[in-house]
Amino acid sequence: MKQNLHLITLGVRDFNKSVEFYSKILGWKSAKASGDDVAFFQAGGVVLAIYPREKLAEDAVISPEGSGFSGFTLAYNAQSESEVDEIISNLKSKGVKIVKEPQKVFWGGYSSYFADPDDYRWEVAYNPFFPIDENGNLKLD
Amino acid sequence: MKQNLHLITLGVRDFNKSVEFYSKILGWKSAKASGDDVAFFQAGGVVLAIYPREKLAEDAVISPEGSGFSGFTLAYNAQSESEVDEIISNLKSKGVKIVKEPQKVFWGGYSSYFADPDDYRWEVAYNPFFPIDENGNLKLD
Repeated sequence: MKQNLHLITLGVRDFNKSVEFYSKILGWKSAKASGDDVAFFQAGGVVLAIYPREKLAEDAVISPEGSGFSGFTLAYNAQSESEVDEIISNLKSKGVKIVKEPQKVFWGGYSSYFADPDDYRWEVAYNPFFPIDENGNLKLD
Repeated sequence: MKQNLHLITLGVRDFNKSVEFYSKILGWKSAKASGDDVAFFQAGGVVLAIYPREKLAEDAVISPEGSGFSGFTLAYNAQSESEVDEIISNLKSKGVKIVKEPQKVFWGGYSSYFADPDDYRWEVAYNPFFPIDENGNLKLD
């Protein structure tokens, strides 16, 4: 198994609401392969998929029930502190739940978090130590 | 906010065990930026990070408790059905929990799932409709 993660799928409780969140509020364009109950978003070097939670659980052979912290976070690395501020300000104006206002953090960067409709947590951060390549992807040595 | 997901962080219950899983069992090389309580793995066009669950929850301003289905899956897209078989066979020989044996699935592909130490679900699939680019990343129109 090569060192590659191609796709992450979020199991969502309200498919239409989540698709609207990612396409209208974040402003992302869905891929042509999207269908009635699945949406794909090319997100730089990885694909983010949205799929009903119960169907995802069935596919992954697990009971769909679950509560509390989902155990993972997604992150968008901005190019500057001001880009972080702009993104969070814009999302807030659209009614998105901001769970952590942009702030300097212990590891030397600048970080904030918002929540998607399933309360999945997205970090929007500026990390001066993490290089973004010419394709807009994070590339670590 | 551009259409980009740079990093996904898994909050893990046993940091050393998870790092060993990703580095020794999957055979992935950690990035130099990794530290005592965080590990980064460049996984194609995205970075997978491993971080203690309680610390991740604190960072994301959420209570760390959680149970049941985490609500997301990760996927590795192989280039053929035989590559799926080989990966799963290899992981099984190393004691990894295979939750779905490789099989033909309704959407026209060939899919399997394994579980990581936190029971996060990884799909290993061959999708004949999904193109992998020259860098090994999934690219959708």
